[in-house]
Amino acid sequence: MYPNVNTLWAETLVEELVAGGVEAVCVSPGSRSTPLTVACAEHPELRAFSHLDERSSAFFALGRARRTGEPTPLVCTSGTAAANFHPAVIEAAQSGVPMLLLTADRPPELTDSGANQTIDQEKLYGDSVRWYRDMPEPAAEPRKVRMLRTTVARALSNSTGSDPGPVHLNCRFRKPLEPTPVPDGHPAAVPTDWADGDRLAADGRDGPFVRTAQGTSELSAPDRSRVTAAVDAADRGLVVAGPSDGGLGPEAVEELAAATGFPVLADPLSNCRFGPHVGSVPVCGGYDGYLGSEAAADWPDPEVVLRFGASPTSKPLRHYLRDADCRQFVVDPSDGWTEATFTASDLLVADSDLTARTVAERVTEPADPVWAERFERAERVHWETVSDGLTGEYWEGGVLADVTRLAPDPATLFVSNSMPVRDLDRFGEPRTADLTVLGNRGASGIDGITSTALGAGSATDDPLVLVTGDLAYYHDMNGLLALGRCGVDATIVLVDNDGGGIFHMLPIEDHDTFESQFKTPHGLDFEPTGELYGLDFERVEGREGFVDAFEGSVGSEGTQVLSVAFDAEASHGRRDTLQRRLAEAL
Amino acid sequence: MYPNVNTLWAETLVEELVAGGVEAVCVSPGSRSTPLTVACAEHPELRAFSHLDERSSAFFALGRARRTGEPTPLVCTSGTAAANFHPAVIEAAQSGVPMLLLTADRPPELTDSGANQTIDQEKLYGDSVRWYRDMPEPAAEPRKVRMLRTTVARALSNSTGSDPGPVHLNCRFRKPLEPTPVPDGHPAAVPTDWADGDRLAADGRDGPFVRTAQGTSELSAPDRSRVTAAVDAADRGLVVAGPSDGGLGPEAVEELAAATGFPVLADPLSNCRFGPHVGSVPVCGGYDGYLGSEAAADWPDPEVVLRFGASPTSKPLRHYLRDADCRQFVVDPSDGWTEATFTASDLLVADSDLTARTVAERVTEPADPVWAERFERAERVHWETVSDGLTGEYWEGGVLADVTRLAPDPATLFVSNSMPVRDLDRFGEPRTADLTVLGNRGASGIDGITSTALGAGSATDDPLVLVTGDLAYYHDMNGLLALGRCGVDATIVLVDNDGGGIFHMLPIEDHDTFESQFKTPHGLDFEPTGELYGLDFERVEGREGFVDAFEGSVGSEGTQVLSVAFDAEASHGRRDTLQRRLAEAL
Repeated sequence: MYPNVNTLWAETLVEELVAGGVEAVCVSPGSRSTPLTVACAEHPELRAFSHLDERSSAFFALGRARRTGEPTPLVCTSGTAAANFHPAVIEAAQSGVPMLLLTADRPPELTDSGANQTIDQEKLYGDSVRWYRDMPEPAAEPRKVRMLRTTVARALSNSTGSDPGPVHLNCRFRKPLEPTPVPDGHPAAVPTDWADGDRLAADGRDGPFVRTAQGTSELSAPDRSRVTAAVDAADRGLVVAGPSDGGLGPEAVEELAAATGFPVLADPLSNCRFGPHVGSVPVCGGYDGYLGSEAAADWPDPEVVLRFGASPTSKPLRHYLRDADCRQFVVDPSDGWTEATFTASDLLVADSDLTARTVAERVTEPADPVWAERFERAERVHWETVSDGLTGEYWEGGVLADVTRLAPDPATLFVSNSMPVRDLDRFGEPRTADLTVLGNRGASGIDGITSTALGAGSATDDPLVLVTGDLAYYHDMNGLLALGRCGVDATIVLVDNDGGGIFHMLPIEDHDTFESQFKTPHGLDFEPTGELYGLDFERVEGREGFVDAFEGSVGSEGTQVLSVAFDAEASHGRRDTLQRRLAEAL
Repeated sequence: MYPNVNTLWAETLVEELVAGGVEAVCVSPGSRSTPLTVACAEHPELRAFSHLDERSSAFFALGRARRTGEPTPLVCTSGTAAANFHPAVIEAAQSGVPMLLLTADRPPELTDSGANQTIDQEKLYGDSVRWYRDMPEPAAEPRKVRMLRTTVARALSNSTGSDPGPVHLNCRFRKPLEPTPVPDGHPAAVPTDWADGDRLAADGRDGPFVRTAQGTSELSAPDRSRVTAAVDAADRGLVVAGPSDGGLGPEAVEELAAATGFPVLADPLSNCRFGPHVGSVPVCGGYDGYLGSEAAADWPDPEVVLRFGASPTSKPLRHYLRDADCRQFVVDPSDGWTEATFTASDLLVADSDLTARTVAERVTEPADPVWAERFERAERVHWETVSDGLTGEYWEGGVLADVTRLAPDPATLFVSNSMPVRDLDRFGEPRTADLTVLGNRGASGIDGITSTALGAGSATDDPLVLVTGDLAYYHDMNGLLALGRCGVDATIVLVDNDGGGIFHMLPIEDHDTFESQFKTPHGLDFEPTGELYGLDFERVEGREGFVDAFEGSVGSEGTQVLSVAFDAEASHGRRDTLQRRLAEAL
């Protein structure tokens, strides 16, 4: 039945992946990984995305998993190929995104022997993975094959459980790597009767070999009472929804906000800034502007804060929370203690939606409406100021305001780190549209941005919009190969200020080395990437030009890169001006 | 004197790097690394190469170190930036190339706190580094500053010692990161009298703070006798020079070959295939052709083999050595035990040149000349066959034969993994020219090839020739930015067969998934890389066209990519044909 034991092993592994719900894999070409590659490519229910650069491959898988909540397993050959996964592994670990790494490796006797393309792959990603197994060598032995089936179920479960993240299975193979028949008695032969006494090993089950039921973590009655009492006692409270792909959802936050009367400060990377709940409860997106301004300096402190998701993108918000003399509950089902100002007073290791609803159902004392009105007024003034600021010369923040406003409903919007996510935070107005906004905010690197976005785009039929800077565009230029190769279309907004615009925000701007080592203008004209990767590269100027091009792109097939050139310093000037106007208006 | 403690710390670190002989660093832009970046950029004796992609940066540093034997320290910011170094770190570890990683990190209280761009950088590269230190926080304390100076000396020494390789210093900094003055009493202030009782801490020494003298490992008298006796007793012996950047040198191999009468089988990545010694002693480069052929099947086995450097690139040679019933001495000063056929009988942990000369000086019984003549004849026939094979339709192996023949004297020749290094091994004829041939053969990845080559090219004024395949060219396209940014010129020979040509050598060629998952044609036309990176992209056809373009390129300024399109299958056919002809002629 099986030409050799590697085929048995790899087909079984892939069979269990599919039984566990996996619909796609990312595969990079290589020799040692042949058994896995062939098994993936030949499985009728599995889509195999082929990537030539493993770094881009891993970010693509990360992006899909961000969008779907399910891992897209990665296959690579032995050697440095596996090390190219490392940046994305770290991002997955830090932002709690499921990932399953299947690295092919040589058989154990070749470890540290000087054999070609053989490196030490054991625990290659250190503490960044949730679970690691150095797999035994393939064998047609019932116990080992049951172990294999169980291990796949466990790997999927570990990558998607209460603390989702990367899982690494190091898969060792010896030749023959191809599905080449070997004669009876060959060490790699699979005797037809190998599993006669154990059909379970050979056939598996209908569905996953082990079904895992992941419980939902719920607060105990005393803990519930403690939280509710604190909320009831407060006249002034806030709900802070930080970055989170699968955390607090729009319905739960709506219930919580309605019951408590607390404003919701919704990070653009939370699930809460956009969606049908916006309008029915006060969802705030302008805090990055007004909380850091003088206008808010004499506001009274909140008395209680309910925090969900990771630490907010907005530095003014983080500092506001740090300086607020109040009780701060951090809800984190993964027990991550991610609160780097060290002012949180209570950690609730429990499901986000469930906790929000638990509080919503039990609250009896509504907050002082004056408190919420203060935020509602600040929001109105903020968005008026932003809107007024869109006249005159176009600038980086204006692009993010327009992209947010004009993105189709529904759409997936991916924003790069450095300035795009910050500008989205400040200038992206809450909408009722179904926008799924994603970014790599776990480690906040500018690597792998394009691939992550395209991976996210590959997961649904929603239009995909990526807003990126020129450094990030350069860093992951290889990722553009996935457009044609993996069949993804996108509208890519390239905010090009020829170098690291963010450094203009930092004191280094005043020093001699600024231009050569920080701003680092590269002088690259990215237009040839159009021809190289078969995309439409359009240079866009001014607001009207951008709006026209953007609307044209999201309404059309294929991929358009809309390149908008800006002077980073001028854009920073505009940010400062708007901030001053806002403070005056408040 | 110092505006703050970070400036003191970083300037001291860089001062000791320069005192230790460092002439250049590779720096990637980022915020957390600001103290190091500024100190590097402002040091008058240090050249700072700025790279936007840390993966390419690390390979560039690897290439420079391959060429010079000295590390080019790497600076990056915190977060995934550091993980992008990982592939090159592994290559450096596996091929024993000096490397010094200076990763900026947040202060220790922010570890695992959810702070932005903060990841676990402790022991990020696992066992791949020779030495690791999590540096203490900068402080104006004499003992700490002496420790810093000592640590830099130690890091340089560890990266270049008897077992050279990567060293990682994780460098923590807290704000202010810029050289911004802070008031007296500020935690980051440097009091003017901080080192009054310890000028040594403040001023260092004239030269390195600690001068390290690295002894040369020499065999004891009994061990010398043992080797010499084995060599003397043998009528048939071989010297095998495997890949090694700084191992067995041409003079020592010449002495050894002359004294023993043993043929030298010189890997193209050893120091022995090219140089003035070729011609005066029998240097063999055709073994990859004839040792695997039927013609050699009935040759008598050698009685003794003296092996230097890493495991040879040639599989026929490795199998020949595996199957030879004889005594095999492996000389390895780094105690690496890199002999993956497990047939070596003696390991000599001693300096390569010294060991070769020791044997040469003591040998009294010359080998049977018939043995060496057998190899000399095989070489003659091999090179005649190769030369004859250059007529007719041009093919991949012909390119490597021509490049070897036409490379300027002196030159640095860098060859990619997969087919180029194999074709060079079989078709690159030994020459008396001063060719420094390099490749990433430690882990044999196809990642970072362009950057490694350009780094090697940046180290000398020798013309640089890179021979690469299309997959490797795509994988490290970002590395081309160094051409203009780091001022390197090159002749880049792009052997383009639209996908992984090497897979045609493997049994997978016969299977359904070959085209989609192994050969993986990408259909990329690389011509736009010319405009993108300011290089001359030339399509070249046929042997005459190639030879003209190659001679034109190596004799001119700027960078030319000479793209030669081949059908991988046809080229494999030609390799097989030549192999048959060779067997017939022998």
